[in-house]
Amino acid sequence: MKIEDIAIVLVEPLYEINIGYVARTMKNFCLGKLILVNPQCEVGDTAYRYAMHGRDVLEKAQRIDSLEEVFDGFDLVVSTSGKSPLSSGYHRRSLTPEDFVNLLSGVEGRAAILFGREDIGLTNEIIKETDFLVYIPANIEYSTLNLSHAVAIIAYVIFRELKHSERAASIASKRERELLLNCLFSIFEKSSVPPHKADKAKLVLRRVLGRAGISKEEVYSLLTVFRKVNTFIEKNLEA
Amino acid sequence: MKIEDIAIVLVEPLYEINIGYVARTMKNFCLGKLILVNPQCEVGDTAYRYAMHGRDVLEKAQRIDSLEEVFDGFDLVVSTSGKSPLSSGYHRRSLTPEDFVNLLSGVEGRAAILFGREDIGLTNEIIKETDFLVYIPANIEYSTLNLSHAVAIIAYVIFRELKHSERAASIASKRERELLLNCLFSIFEKSSVPPHKADKAKLVLRRVLGRAGISKEEVYSLLTVFRKVNTFIEKNLEA
Repeated sequence: MKIEDIAIVLVEPLYEINIGYVARTMKNFCLGKLILVNPQCEVGDTAYRYAMHGRDVLEKAQRIDSLEEVFDGFDLVVSTSGKSPLSSGYHRRSLTPEDFVNLLSGVEGRAAILFGREDIGLTNEIIKETDFLVYIPANIEYSTLNLSHAVAIIAYVIFRELKHSERAASIASKRERELLLNCLFSIFEKSSVPPHKADKAKLVLRRVLGRAGISKEEVYSLLTVFRKVNTFIEKNLEA
Repeated sequence: MKIEDIAIVLVEPLYEINIGYVARTMKNFCLGKLILVNPQCEVGDTAYRYAMHGRDVLEKAQRIDSLEEVFDGFDLVVSTSGKSPLSSGYHRRSLTPEDFVNLLSGVEGRAAILFGREDIGLTNEIIKETDFLVYIPANIEYSTLNLSHAVAIIAYVIFRELKHSERAASIASKRERELLLNCLFSIFEKSSVPPHKADKAKLVLRRVLGRAGISKEEVYSLLTVFRKVNTFIEKNLEA
């Protein structure tokens, strides 16, 4: 998914300052599409003042009356919460921002990220309708972030993964990661590693490489070496 | 380093709202020590209103007149900037938040993170005196974050690495990562991988494992398997 395909949706925001700050931080991290669902305040001078150079994000912001349009118009709709899924009981499909963005980078289509109003967050009814719940790990004694701070952190994590040129330009595709993984799995098999241990290591390797955001160059550099190890073992087995 | 040993230092902040928001986001991410250097505004009702449940961070905040106390009192002093080190010319020892926090997790002592005033940031003179420059990767067309958003993002990255129980409890130590790396290097050597290729792969592996924040459990799970590969190659060589 490209960063252009991601929308930030504020559900019934209460304060102009926050709307302005959200527009600013979206601009900081190259997110252009803001949707305001039934805002409970004006979106006027104060919002524009706090938006600073994110003014255009605010100008282009779409206003709608109900979330139905979002559920109809996007392929993936996620909710956000400051509460840990352990404490809130939403175990089902909850993700950290990093895991969510890893998932995003592998799917096509358009995604909407919902943020609830400042006082009550998103309702349980809305959360249940969404595909995933993204929660920001925080102090268990005070995990309620200001709305614009929550958007800033998620926008930053998205930008880092999908846009930051230093890495995004060279991030390995899933196919490339699989090349490396398959080479490693082949080494395990040829070395008579017990299957249950190999299976666990496979899971771990897949997770670690994904989390590290390994680049194309890094994959090929490791592949060169592990292919040599693989060939070496093969030859010795034949001898 | 423990999260308790990290201080957030605002150098000549201009706006009460930002000071309040900074206290709130520090509380969200378990950072307790705030230092205000020569604030240019009152720190009164407005700051407390925006601090919400971060009130105690604000109450305990230390006020000082000059940065000298910070340079004298902390083992590590870092500056922050929204400008990419490529554009600002500060190539020297500049780090992303993630790389900075990786570094923090390996050192002892106390660290201070400096944030400049809202309009001009930190001066070049201050930046030059600090040990590292931490920059937040962002939109090259508009990389200036609101002060409290910049603190929120860095606080979040610190919390994720040093405090978040799910991972911090089980994060592998440097020694454990080295056990795994040395086992892999031994495999390369025994498999007659050309040294220059092995050296490059070693660098890549070290970087990827560090970036992924590999856990103790993951290290030992991989170690079990790669030790078996190592033994297998050893036996075949003897035969």
